[in-house]
Amino acid sequence: MIFTTQKISDSYWKVSIENPPVNVFDASFSKQLIILMDEMEAEENLKVVVFESANPDFFVAHVELLNITDFPKGTGKTGLSISWPDIAKRLEQAPFVSIASIRGRARGLGSEFVQAFDIRFASKEKAFFGQPEIGIGSFPGGGGLERLHLLTGKARALEIILSGNDYDAETAALYGWVNRAVPDAELDAFVTNFAERIASFDKFAIASIKSIMNERAVLPKNDHIMETQTRFFQSLESPESRQRIKRLLDNGLQTYGDVELNLGKHL
Amino acid sequence: MIFTTQKISDSYWKVSIENPPVNVFDASFSKQLIILMDEMEAEENLKVVVFESANPDFFVAHVELLNITDFPKGTGKTGLSISWPDIAKRLEQAPFVSIASIRGRARGLGSEFVQAFDIRFASKEKAFFGQPEIGIGSFPGGGGLERLHLLTGKARALEIILSGNDYDAETAALYGWVNRAVPDAELDAFVTNFAERIASFDKFAIASIKSIMNERAVLPKNDHIMETQTRFFQSLESPESRQRIKRLLDNGLQTYGDVELNLGKHL
Amino acid sequence: MIFTTQKISDSYWKVSIENPPVNVFDASFSKQLIILMDEMEAEENLKVVVFESANPDFFVAHVELLNITDFPKGTGKTGLSISWPDIAKRLEQAPFVSIASIRGRARGLGSEFVQAFDIRFASKEKAFFGQPEIGIGSFPGGGGLERLHLLTGKARALEIILSGNDYDAETAALYGWVNRAVPDAELDAFVTNFAERIASFDKFAIASIKSIMNERAVLPKNDHIMETQTRFFQSLESPESRQRIKRLLDNGLQTYGDVELNLGKHL
Repeated sequence: MIFTTQKISDSYWKVSIENPPVNVFDASFSKQLIILMDEMEAEENLKVVVFESANPDFFVAHVELLNITDFPKGTGKTGLSISWPDIAKRLEQAPFVSIASIRGRARGLGSEFVQAFDIRFASKEKAFFGQPEIGIGSFPGGGGLERLHLLTGKARALEIILSGNDYDAETAALYGWVNRAVPDAELDAFVTNFAERIASFDKFAIASIKSIMNERAVLPKNDHIMETQTRFFQSLESPESRQRIKRLLDNGLQTYGDVELNLGKHL
Repeated sequence: MIFTTQKISDSYWKVSIENPPVNVFDASFSKQLIILMDEMEAEENLKVVVFESANPDFFVAHVELLNITDFPKGTGKTGLSISWPDIAKRLEQAPFVSIASIRGRARGLGSEFVQAFDIRFASKEKAFFGQPEIGIGSFPGGGGLERLHLLTGKARALEIILSGNDYDAETAALYGWVNRAVPDAELDAFVTNFAERIASFDKFAIASIKSIMNERAVLPKNDHIMETQTRFFQSLESPESRQRIKRLLDNGLQTYGDVELNLGKHL
Repeated sequence: MIFTTQKISDSYWKVSIENPPVNVFDASFSKQLIILMDEMEAEENLKVVVFESANPDFFVAHVELLNITDFPKGTGKTGLSISWPDIAKRLEQAPFVSIASIRGRARGLGSEFVQAFDIRFASKEKAFFGQPEIGIGSFPGGGGLERLHLLTGKARALEIILSGNDYDAETAALYGWVNRAVPDAELDAFVTNFAERIASFDKFAIASIKSIMNERAVLPKNDHIMETQTRFFQSLESPESRQRIKRLLDNGLQTYGDVELNLGKHL
């Protein structure tokens, strides 16, 4: 079980992520996330869900690069691929609030995973963010080219995506990548208070706010999301990309160690 | 007289707001604001108007909740309700610059009031902001769902509106809700210098900058503003909302005291 | 030679700007920039270009105001004026990354010059920014009314353009005008590391990221850029503008001295 759901009440759920050794977003992650999404949508009293990681060093490392063919295929109810883009859009459109409480690394698809949440709070000392795809001759394929600039503006999104660098939580907060950086010792209490507060309000008001906001704010377009995802997988097939991926895997990618901990440096 | 206008010159006016005990935005506020807006538009040499509060604890508390039926009815020259949305759009389109110099609380319609100004400066120690509508089972109905995300981005607007929390001026500045937070002891001199500076420039240039910017930047749509306002008033009619409003009024809402001072805590 | 190009490799160029005494953007600047732009586009291996100033007090002061009729005329391949708007758009669309490493003043067209780069890094102590056009009865004519609000949001863009004030690098970073402010002693090493890093990645990935982002993010419209430029030059013809320009020139504009160093104060 990658996702352990603690149902604090009908209206407030907490989900812990654990996929050793570094919480990669692999085929099992995708399949179990689809089941969890169905469960969240089915609980009509649900008001708020908090996602956190059981691994203090990794929130979600990145997409699994060895077995990408195992990911679930086909499109979901939003018309997007069920492997992930469909889930992202369902989170956006859900009548409940999704919150990522981030400790550890959230890079690549891990960063794009948290971009799909309504709200992101990050440990000031222990959260790190990156879009390292350029290091394997590619680019963000799971929404980063569509959502990150809506959070940070175009210039900072280009800086992040073109450099593949790791960003600490304070810089991420300055850039708008996360809502705010909270001192690590205070993060859990802060997020719990925030979530309990929302759980005390009316479901009708929560759902109305999200649905009205979704009509007012700029959201990514489905065809952009799909086009980028297709081009991302194509880019991984190039000899140059294969070679860069092989070198990183040989050096320890997807195992717990210095390459995963300091990926920005190793690109 | 809720608004006291000090005409420092033809080109520079200062307006002080006083509607005891907590500066609620009530029917009289609305009616007198319409007259003031007509006066500002009629002064063809006007270049800059600064609004401040005579009450150091409250800029504008929120909408009056007991007598909402007294608000002026009908649509104004912009096609929007004259009670407030029409004024907001006229401020946006005016050939003069509107500045809010904020001390004290600006919550709900008070927050939406300042969102309609061109520029917002806030006392670092004494200004507080919130959209507390969720606490009465509702949502911002005076432009907050249309304008706040243009200032803060969607994720932070959702955080603010879904939590109903109070925000201090430094967080508001980080989020873009206000242009900047200025130490309270420096605020008046800072705003005066800023306004006098603008008053020294050409009216033609000022009006050109605003009209060109209004064609370049994303602005709220009239039908969005109107739809949200209608849904806001409908939401107040629900039994759940009536009960939440009654409880807050019983505890001291709309009187000077702890509920108004620390509304975020009491929701 | 206003631009000195150091070709560190096929993929990484560094350009130093020197146009004494204060690096004005004059007709020669425009003509040589067109040649440089052609060179950059012709080098198919180019991945990253860094622009910096040889003058620590001035990055680019502003447009030359005495001989504006000497600027090259006609439209370039983007359909925009070749004097500058065409270059701005070509930088945006280029398959390489453009970085401004800013020391000294970047005001007016100097500010608009750096707004056209993909990424802006500024010396925390020595970089200053402004849009002083209002001080000559005019408004930004080289893209500032189209690009600045995309970086800072509308409210802060209005504050900057309506005040004509000088902004330090930390405020510019808070507002999003620049990506970040870097301590002056660290700026060169920071930018060099950043540029070398990008130069180590694949050209295909770099070009893909820029072209995909250009389809996803909001960009200025050609007709807006052209309309504002036309109106800018018209505004300079008014008696009021001529008088304000003459007074500034009499006081030392376009020479090295207090007016240029502290232009915000002198408007």
